[in-house]
Amino acid sequence: MKRTHHPEDFTTNPFDDDKLHEECGVFGIFGSDDAAKHVVLGLHALQHRGQEAAGITSFDGQQFYTERAMGHVADSFSSQPVIDKLKGFTAIGHVRYSTTGETALRNVQPLFAELSSGGFAVAHNGNLTNAAHMRKQLVRQGSIFQSTSDTEVFIHLIATSTFRTLMDRFIDALRKVEGAYSLVVLTREGMIGARDPLGVRPLVLGKLDDDTHILASETCALDILGADFVRDIEPGEIVTISKSGIKSIKPFPPAKPRPCIFEHVYFSRPDSYLDGMSIYEVRKRIGAELAGESPVEADLVVPVPDSGTPAAIGYAQAAGIPFELGIIRNHYIGRTFIEPADHIRHLGVKLKHNANRWQLDGKRVVLVDDSIVRGTTSVKIVDMVRQAGAREVHMRIASPPTAHSCFYGVDTPERDKLLASRMDVKTMQKHINVDSLAFLTIDGLYRAVNEDKRHAAAPQYCDACFTGEYPTHLTDQDERENADQFTLISLQQN
Amino acid sequence: MKRTHHPEDFTTNPFDDDKLHEECGVFGIFGSDDAAKHVVLGLHALQHRGQEAAGITSFDGQQFYTERAMGHVADSFSSQPVIDKLKGFTAIGHVRYSTTGETALRNVQPLFAELSSGGFAVAHNGNLTNAAHMRKQLVRQGSIFQSTSDTEVFIHLIATSTFRTLMDRFIDALRKVEGAYSLVVLTREGMIGARDPLGVRPLVLGKLDDDTHILASETCALDILGADFVRDIEPGEIVTISKSGIKSIKPFPPAKPRPCIFEHVYFSRPDSYLDGMSIYEVRKRIGAELAGESPVEADLVVPVPDSGTPAAIGYAQAAGIPFELGIIRNHYIGRTFIEPADHIRHLGVKLKHNANRWQLDGKRVVLVDDSIVRGTTSVKIVDMVRQAGAREVHMRIASPPTAHSCFYGVDTPERDKLLASRMDVKTMQKHINVDSLAFLTIDGLYRAVNEDKRHAAAPQYCDACFTGEYPTHLTDQDERENADQFTLISLQQN
Amino acid sequence: MKRTHHPEDFTTNPFDDDKLHEECGVFGIFGSDDAAKHVVLGLHALQHRGQEAAGITSFDGQQFYTERAMGHVADSFSSQPVIDKLKGFTAIGHVRYSTTGETALRNVQPLFAELSSGGFAVAHNGNLTNAAHMRKQLVRQGSIFQSTSDTEVFIHLIATSTFRTLMDRFIDALRKVEGAYSLVVLTREGMIGARDPLGVRPLVLGKLDDDTHILASETCALDILGADFVRDIEPGEIVTISKSGIKSIKPFPPAKPRPCIFEHVYFSRPDSYLDGMSIYEVRKRIGAELAGESPVEADLVVPVPDSGTPAAIGYAQAAGIPFELGIIRNHYIGRTFIEPADHIRHLGVKLKHNANRWQLDGKRVVLVDDSIVRGTTSVKIVDMVRQAGAREVHMRIASPPTAHSCFYGVDTPERDKLLASRMDVKTMQKHINVDSLAFLTIDGLYRAVNEDKRHAAAPQYCDACFTGEYPTHLTDQDERENADQFTLISLQQN
Amino acid sequence: MKRTHHPEDFTTNPFDDDKLHEECGVFGIFGSDDAAKHVVLGLHALQHRGQEAAGITSFDGQQFYTERAMGHVADSFSSQPVIDKLKGFTAIGHVRYSTTGETALRNVQPLFAELSSGGFAVAHNGNLTNAAHMRKQLVRQGSIFQSTSDTEVFIHLIATSTFRTLMDRFIDALRKVEGAYSLVVLTREGMIGARDPLGVRPLVLGKLDDDTHILASETCALDILGADFVRDIEPGEIVTISKSGIKSIKPFPPAKPRPCIFEHVYFSRPDSYLDGMSIYEVRKRIGAELAGESPVEADLVVPVPDSGTPAAIGYAQAAGIPFELGIIRNHYIGRTFIEPADHIRHLGVKLKHNANRWQLDGKRVVLVDDSIVRGTTSVKIVDMVRQAGAREVHMRIASPPTAHSCFYGVDTPERDKLLASRMDVKTMQKHINVDSLAFLTIDGLYRAVNEDKRHAAAPQYCDACFTGEYPTHLTDQDERENADQFTLISLQQN
Repeated sequence: MKRTHHPEDFTTNPFDDDKLHEECGVFGIFGSDDAAKHVVLGLHALQHRGQEAAGITSFDGQQFYTERAMGHVADSFSSQPVIDKLKGFTAIGHVRYSTTGETALRNVQPLFAELSSGGFAVAHNGNLTNAAHMRKQLVRQGSIFQSTSDTEVFIHLIATSTFRTLMDRFIDALRKVEGAYSLVVLTREGMIGARDPLGVRPLVLGKLDDDTHILASETCALDILGADFVRDIEPGEIVTISKSGIKSIKPFPPAKPRPCIFEHVYFSRPDSYLDGMSIYEVRKRIGAELAGESPVEADLVVPVPDSGTPAAIGYAQAAGIPFELGIIRNHYIGRTFIEPADHIRHLGVKLKHNANRWQLDGKRVVLVDDSIVRGTTSVKIVDMVRQAGAREVHMRIASPPTAHSCFYGVDTPERDKLLASRMDVKTMQKHINVDSLAFLTIDGLYRAVNEDKRHAAAPQYCDACFTGEYPTHLTDQDERENADQFTLISLQQN
Repeated sequence: MKRTHHPEDFTTNPFDDDKLHEECGVFGIFGSDDAAKHVVLGLHALQHRGQEAAGITSFDGQQFYTERAMGHVADSFSSQPVIDKLKGFTAIGHVRYSTTGETALRNVQPLFAELSSGGFAVAHNGNLTNAAHMRKQLVRQGSIFQSTSDTEVFIHLIATSTFRTLMDRFIDALRKVEGAYSLVVLTREGMIGARDPLGVRPLVLGKLDDDTHILASETCALDILGADFVRDIEPGEIVTISKSGIKSIKPFPPAKPRPCIFEHVYFSRPDSYLDGMSIYEVRKRIGAELAGESPVEADLVVPVPDSGTPAAIGYAQAAGIPFELGIIRNHYIGRTFIEPADHIRHLGVKLKHNANRWQLDGKRVVLVDDSIVRGTTSVKIVDMVRQAGAREVHMRIASPPTAHSCFYGVDTPERDKLLASRMDVKTMQKHINVDSLAFLTIDGLYRAVNEDKRHAAAPQYCDACFTGEYPTHLTDQDERENADQFTLISLQQN
Repeated sequence: MKRTHHPEDFTTNPFDDDKLHEECGVFGIFGSDDAAKHVVLGLHALQHRGQEAAGITSFDGQQFYTERAMGHVADSFSSQPVIDKLKGFTAIGHVRYSTTGETALRNVQPLFAELSSGGFAVAHNGNLTNAAHMRKQLVRQGSIFQSTSDTEVFIHLIATSTFRTLMDRFIDALRKVEGAYSLVVLTREGMIGARDPLGVRPLVLGKLDDDTHILASETCALDILGADFVRDIEPGEIVTISKSGIKSIKPFPPAKPRPCIFEHVYFSRPDSYLDGMSIYEVRKRIGAELAGESPVEADLVVPVPDSGTPAAIGYAQAAGIPFELGIIRNHYIGRTFIEPADHIRHLGVKLKHNANRWQLDGKRVVLVDDSIVRGTTSVKIVDMVRQAGAREVHMRIASPPTAHSCFYGVDTPERDKLLASRMDVKTMQKHINVDSLAFLTIDGLYRAVNEDKRHAAAPQYCDACFTGEYPTHLTDQDERENADQFTLISLQQN
Repeated sequence: MKRTHHPEDFTTNPFDDDKLHEECGVFGIFGSDDAAKHVVLGLHALQHRGQEAAGITSFDGQQFYTERAMGHVADSFSSQPVIDKLKGFTAIGHVRYSTTGETALRNVQPLFAELSSGGFAVAHNGNLTNAAHMRKQLVRQGSIFQSTSDTEVFIHLIATSTFRTLMDRFIDALRKVEGAYSLVVLTREGMIGARDPLGVRPLVLGKLDDDTHILASETCALDILGADFVRDIEPGEIVTISKSGIKSIKPFPPAKPRPCIFEHVYFSRPDSYLDGMSIYEVRKRIGAELAGESPVEADLVVPVPDSGTPAAIGYAQAAGIPFELGIIRNHYIGRTFIEPADHIRHLGVKLKHNANRWQLDGKRVVLVDDSIVRGTTSVKIVDMVRQAGAREVHMRIASPPTAHSCFYGVDTPERDKLLASRMDVKTMQKHINVDSLAFLTIDGLYRAVNEDKRHAAAPQYCDACFTGEYPTHLTDQDERENADQFTLISLQQN
């Protein structure tokens, strides 16, 4: 389901950082006496993929146990009473990013249902592009939905499938949906991992020892446990982990993978590995490409912290200009503050950042950020840097202009809110008030990401947010545009 | 669903008063600008029918709104923010009695589902005797249950019915269930009231004015609003209240009604009217019958407060013995207290009651209570009265021995926990340690209840708790007894 | 300190029952391994003396432990973690009635201070009439107050006393205050009980066994524990309970006792004994006196529940008219409800009470209540009874007209809010809309209270609320009236 | 008051970062319509100086208002209802670092008292070294303490002073205490700022406009409001800010200032200015000094984030070795997690940090940290870096060995817990398991801090934590060591 959006004016909300946001992270473990505790730690390492809610479902051979809570993993899942409820040798978990309106606890995953085959829990990273369409069909046939989440469509498709075994029903369901999904599932038989045929969202396999396997959105969730990375789950692959070991099937017609390129630009943590590459290293290469494409004479390179930092280091090293923390980040980020009547200039930005005046005063500054979404924060950051005395400000963006919405599980503003869909680069430069502005080219981005694979068939990515080329059908989006008025199917209240 | 039970030892739990408990009360209003506020007040008047949770669903012509909470109506539904969420001109509500284990918020009614015909909310007083049977069938066909409540069976039967209109689907569903139900339903078209063919549980129709109608479990919920009592909803009747007025249908084959006689003995509030009779007056008559059947020479008649009071007044007036408050009730009843190591004699009883020593000392006392369930409290009350110096204690019970479980929406202990199923009256007298013990006869009870209808066809009641004659099939109970092991279908966790 | 008052309009607040309210209850125990648990139970039995907050201080020979909470004893003090914190063989407790504005947790008793002699905790029932005067003096000398409570004056007087031993300092302090106090104190040496020279508020001594003694406001707090009543603490007596036994001193000049007569009329629980008399029995005698003084021809006697019930039984028995529950009380009393826009007639009363129409319809009714304060509730009760069809309503009040404020620890409205200070009986009768209205005479009240002591020196009471004759100086009140504007010394915020 | 300490084993507590902690930050504003909102923002900018509790007191010309809460400023002071309570044109605030045991809400500052001169609120950064001594004296004279905070000593000294005016009493009190204090005070007359004669803790004056002045611990709290820095409050200076402007007095005998040098090393935020110097710049200079004193051949310089970053940049630039983020910080730091039974290697560190394996693998690494306290974290960080494949690890510490406790408002472990008091550098190197270990010399530190003031009288600092030379008496510490057993005066419970 698409989330509604913040109002434009967000001056006092330090959370609204004008970034695209990954909407979910998933994690699962099979074969541990302390399954729930491991999931808690794994989700903590994936917290950057979703901060508004978290949930865990465990299974002890007899019963399923689920706990869900709004807020951070550390706030809700680090007490003994909660852990004690999550019994069992296998457990899966989910962190979620979402806005207030729709963030009822009932939407927090894992979703659970008692099917005729027994309990079934699912955690989903991604977004289906035909969820509304399928839901209407299912309701007409007598299915009753409990949430507004697109993930529930999976469950009803399985419950009403005419196939016999649970695995056949699962595959039957996956074949009916379109869009992006990396799933971690818990059943009486074991844990299942599945990735959509294009592999849009990541999913990796790890292990603590020969009997204890892990599924996770990113490798940083393996590191916190001291677990070993085994391999990526492949696009279109379904992996089953049970007491009889690991089995893998690929029930879909072959397709050319299209993993999300924005994971490299911003979503994934810099200490994670994706497709065998260090995210931190790729971002440094991006910075170096950017320095090559758009050099400038300057006194220092300053990252917009913290997401711009690796690219800024890469830029500084390539350009031979000193890297300095010209903007200092306040680590205690709070909720919305109430502003005084005489509004404080750019308070929203200052709650998180402060100019390091001594460094900036009288200097020519290269400001490096990972991307520009609506541009609201950029305007304020630049103004703050100028107020601190910077003589020139040159902005360098470590990705191409973000001009298109994402329908695959990323929170994007409506298209007309995206700065790059409304302005060309020159106009943006004036709007943001910088002496020069340059974005990395799409070719430069592919070069940085593929540097290690120069030969032959470098992989293609989902780069729809930059190019508008969506690799799947967008059934719901098309139907919505066709309908004069789309009335959201409002589901069970509260 | 049957509830599990308290452990026998409950000395410090003042809530466990060794009574049978009505499990629900329902209320609905159509045609008021302040629908939700009226429902809050109506449910407050019905609080004695269920103290553990409450819920309200409203409809404003566009959308349904539901709020649910554990605890008393007054605690959760008397704040403006809650009321503000429950928009609309019609609303229904529910109070619920239930034990901790199963009292997840998801079981709190009204239950709501978005059917293909639109929103559907239901509040249910009663219990289905084939709920488990139907649920298994529905799950096998792909229905996914959200709660452990028997009430959800109604909703899935409607969602999967092959009839076309909502009313036809509703009737189709009612025809498939067995047991007791008084339902108040909210749909986009209006409010529906329905009572099972035997009319086991009560349901009355009232009105505030010509455009504003009310459905309620008891008339006391009309009084609090200053509303007029119109009539009882008849057994087997379905009433639809909408902007086009009130319509009534009776889609079931004719059946001899069997309303619950225990409503007269204990469940209903003394200020309510049932079948045209004042509950208080019937209880006084019961007391008079008891005085006639089982007289005794004594100095004073003392009620076990407060449920024994009307019968005690009736007994005292008929016998010409002074009525005195020999036991004083503490109005501040709390949750479980933690007892000192040197356990206090009958603390559980003393938390609620204290002997009025001055009245009891040296006296011959007739102690009047409405019923004996497990007998645990009676033992302690009698001991307390004796400690206060009573010379003789004669116990008179305003109903026949309760020897059988109820399956129609009343919380009863397992049969072998019922004192009257384990002992005859003489043994009970010794067990409770009274100088004499007498129960009202079943004939005496019918006489008291039917006094105004001496002629011809006095109504028959459901008196299964006294007689063991159940007026419907007990499918689930039979299947349970047939199965070696019945594994409860455990549904969605948490 | 005097509390501020509710606004006149309280239609939807079922707590505002138009009664005078005792402001506190105190309890202490010395010599029990489970001291705190006993105090919790004792305070529960005294809950009627103060419902808004409770606190307990215990001592284990080394350290003092204090827990305080808003709300009922049962809500806050029945969990193991709280009990576990209150270690020790001796503990004292307090329940408090007070309005929101001043009910900061810091005012909840027992108050505790670390004096140079060691820890000192005090629980106080009563009110000082020179507290503001003394406080000003103490602040001028450098004392810093923590609360707005008059009780804190005791502590600073002891801390700054020039005497040497703690007991001398305590007596020194008591000699400087005027007004009413029953105190229970905890020190390193043991527990102290003290009652002001006039003995306005009650305090009794009980024992669980030879080594375990109890101090309590009423005997009902002994009954719940199965403890024995030993004797009343005498006016002007100070009792010290320690490991070396019980010691008693009387350090004040002899004075004629003036215990509060309203304890008999309303404050104390009917199952308590006061001055050797059963409260229930005295109230029945009051009803009989009332029947003798103000007879009336009628069909039934109906109490305003529950405080009017014993007097109504007494009236009915003396007059030979049947006693009936013509008004039914809802046991689930909630907080303020939000009323519908079309205000419901007398909702405030209906939230607690409902007319028992069958009994009242067409009848001549004697309505018995214990007292009339502002008369607001009486008007509504009578109207409700008339709406239910009563042919005649005769109101009989079991006390003289309440025409004067109390300054000794009872919550009274400002004098001009008292109905009896604004109207004579005839005008009141018209205002309340009854066919006749009669109050008990002050002589009748003294007769009922003293029936067992006809001979010689029947005790005199504090009857200032009826007569305006205050038995102590009212220094603060006098100074307040002398000042043009009295600015309350506002103390520590929050 | 000295805080007690965490147990040694803290593997799963990510808060325990083995750093010294500033215990407080203070802020005040006079002359703003939105005083409270400004204080909230100022405290947010000072959050790094105390994370466990915050409080604000405001004054509106009539009344004082105080709100206090555990937790972060943003969590408790960003809602309108809280702001609405803090009325007035002037307000002061405090953030506090402290452990659970003593962190009762009553200890949260500002402390407030109603003195005979009117309300008096104080926020204190620092620690008195004769607080226990003075408290004993005051209690003996009749003062009753409300908290366990040393700050309350100020208030009682003022309340009991024999001088007449409030300012004379304030000076009288300051003259009686010894130790470190930067105070912000609110009285009916205005706001007061005061700094102890040695100026151990910082305090700056700023202004929003000519009528609106600010006092704050650091300049970063001015930046967030867009306020101008005016000057440091001088050691021994008392500044009064009222409607009649700013007045300054210096009532103490002249003393050579000894500001805390650790503010430069770690406590202050890098974007703050202290004594006219940029903290960030000083830290870079420290890194450069360290590179000069202790060079090493290596592939990359890696900071222990985030406190080691500026020194690492300085080291890298001076040494000509690439600066890389070899350790990645998780921004979502939670409370204690519950560890699996098979304990995870260095989980405590991994909850906050992860090795950036790609950068570290096979490399010679210079690891730069600001200080070593107990050394517990260093051991784990080094092990994590080695596990990630580092070939050599050279640790460089941007300060001298921390070998002595601080008694001036910094949370330090007992002396024997300080690694540098137990081991020499060689032993530490082995303990931490690094290839080389070097600390900055005290001379190097003074050089870095004084670089701009090479000439003449470079200021002296309080460097007791490095040198053991305490610039004031330590009365309490001496008395404690003299007593065989020191029994902490335990004050009011709860």
